[in-house]
Amino acid sequence: MTNGSQDGPDPVARMLADDLASASLGMRLIESGAGRAVVAMRITESMINGHAVAHGGYVFLLADTAFACACNSHGPVTVAAGAEISFIAPVRLGDELTATAEERVRFGRSGIYDVTVRRGDQTVAEFRGRSRTVEPAFSQETPT
Amino acid sequence: MTNGSQDGPDPVARMLADDLASASLGMRLIESGAGRAVVAMRITESMINGHAVAHGGYVFLLADTAFACACNSHGPVTVAAGAEISFIAPVRLGDELTATAEERVRFGRSGIYDVTVRRGDQTVAEFRGRSRTVEPAFSQETPT
Amino acid sequence: MTNGSQDGPDPVARMLADDLASASLGMRLIESGAGRAVVAMRITESMINGHAVAHGGYVFLLADTAFACACNSHGPVTVAAGAEISFIAPVRLGDELTATAEERVRFGRSGIYDVTVRRGDQTVAEFRGRSRTVEPAFSQETPT
Amino acid sequence: MTNGSQDGPDPVARMLADDLASASLGMRLIESGAGRAVVAMRITESMINGHAVAHGGYVFLLADTAFACACNSHGPVTVAAGAEISFIAPVRLGDELTATAEERVRFGRSGIYDVTVRRGDQTVAEFRGRSRTVEPAFSQETPT
Repeated sequence: MTNGSQDGPDPVARMLADDLASASLGMRLIESGAGRAVVAMRITESMINGHAVAHGGYVFLLADTAFACACNSHGPVTVAAGAEISFIAPVRLGDELTATAEERVRFGRSGIYDVTVRRGDQTVAEFRGRSRTVEPAFSQETPT
Repeated sequence: MTNGSQDGPDPVARMLADDLASASLGMRLIESGAGRAVVAMRITESMINGHAVAHGGYVFLLADTAFACACNSHGPVTVAAGAEISFIAPVRLGDELTATAEERVRFGRSGIYDVTVRRGDQTVAEFRGRSRTVEPAFSQETPT
Repeated sequence: MTNGSQDGPDPVARMLADDLASASLGMRLIESGAGRAVVAMRITESMINGHAVAHGGYVFLLADTAFACACNSHGPVTVAAGAEISFIAPVRLGDELTATAEERVRFGRSGIYDVTVRRGDQTVAEFRGRSRTVEPAFSQETPT
Repeated sequence: MTNGSQDGPDPVARMLADDLASASLGMRLIESGAGRAVVAMRITESMINGHAVAHGGYVFLLADTAFACACNSHGPVTVAAGAEISFIAPVRLGDELTATAEERVRFGRSGIYDVTVRRGDQTVAEFRGRSRTVEPAFSQETPT
């Protein structure tokens, strides 16, 4: 794991260490930097839905965690205001997925991040997240 | 639970019974009908993220399951082509959420469904899903 | 045209009167109220694209104007932060379209509005807009 | 203008030549290639709205045309199934905008294209379009 921040503890690693949701799904931070993150996850049996493929929600969850790592890489607490996902190919039991998040633009307290979820070389989902930076004092509050 | 289908086994209940992903998160089908579904879920400790609120991915997962129930209520196997979500208020440990999915429009093999996620009377997220009906023979395939 | 505001000049009619973009396309405010607006437009020759159907951008423009009318109906200057549109049926020369905007939710300075664009009874597009209210002093500024 | 197609007439230039909507707004194809296009447009008085800035619909229109150029660069008639736009900075009278469209992924008859709209170096909008290729015989029909 690499990290673009040179001065002080890595806010992304710190955030993920506190993130039971991502940890309990077996997500691993592969790489992180300024506005960038790669997170991996293997599809387990509890992620399979009624169509015998992975529930799209788990693919979203992986992308969302990579997005959170990328948008919090700058330091200030930043939350997801929203996101859009397109499901491109079905994902199955045992598949190893990687989500690569890249910052597209930041403006004011807002940001847009693109996340591509792949199984090997194949893209299985495209995600675009909208972030809002919240003041530390309001970090428990809604990002309106 | 009510169901709009009068002739034969309920495809929504059948689908959810096979859906380990939704079942293992404790989701319950409260109501279902033609193009409509209400699904409930309680936020547990494994859904909490690094900001001490529920990971947005789990809110998406709940909305996505309600969407799947609504768009499969007509019978033919239907999958999510994509979705958009706006996070409106933070969700916390122990919160009981309900996701209400309503069909907005169907055209050809496509459909658009709106899902509102609430905690009591308060809206915590708005979701809009795009569905594609797949031929039975291709039910394991990607919805392109 | 009806208007939900009882006290003082209608902010929606005032806004549209100043809106050269919408006026020059022949848009007409059919109805407006608190969080709600209906706007109509006829498809003219200059709106036709290379596939002999109306350019989707003009369908978006109509929906966006109805959205602006609805989200400014409360008084404070409110701008579009973003929008999503699904094109459902092709639109042709001479078609008379109506865009019906309804507020779905407001939270803090943000709002979500759904706009359905119809030709007679047929839905031709579904639009969802995200709004931000800006302080009067900053009304010329970006909604970050 | 460059074009990635080496054999036969450029489908993108041919499409734009037939596109009254884009031509009447003064749009110019700056560059095109396989899955890629750059289109420019100057903001005129008829594009200004009630907040004294350019109507977001015209920014969408420009992005949508660049998207159409990029997704039709492969030859088969391809239409917009939908799009998402985020408005990042206000645009004013006289501004010269360029929209740069890049293909992100194609799968089956679908595609995802990202379009960045800039004024000089500054990003004013980010757009993501979803395309569907239609059979020639059905080119006048809806992309369901």
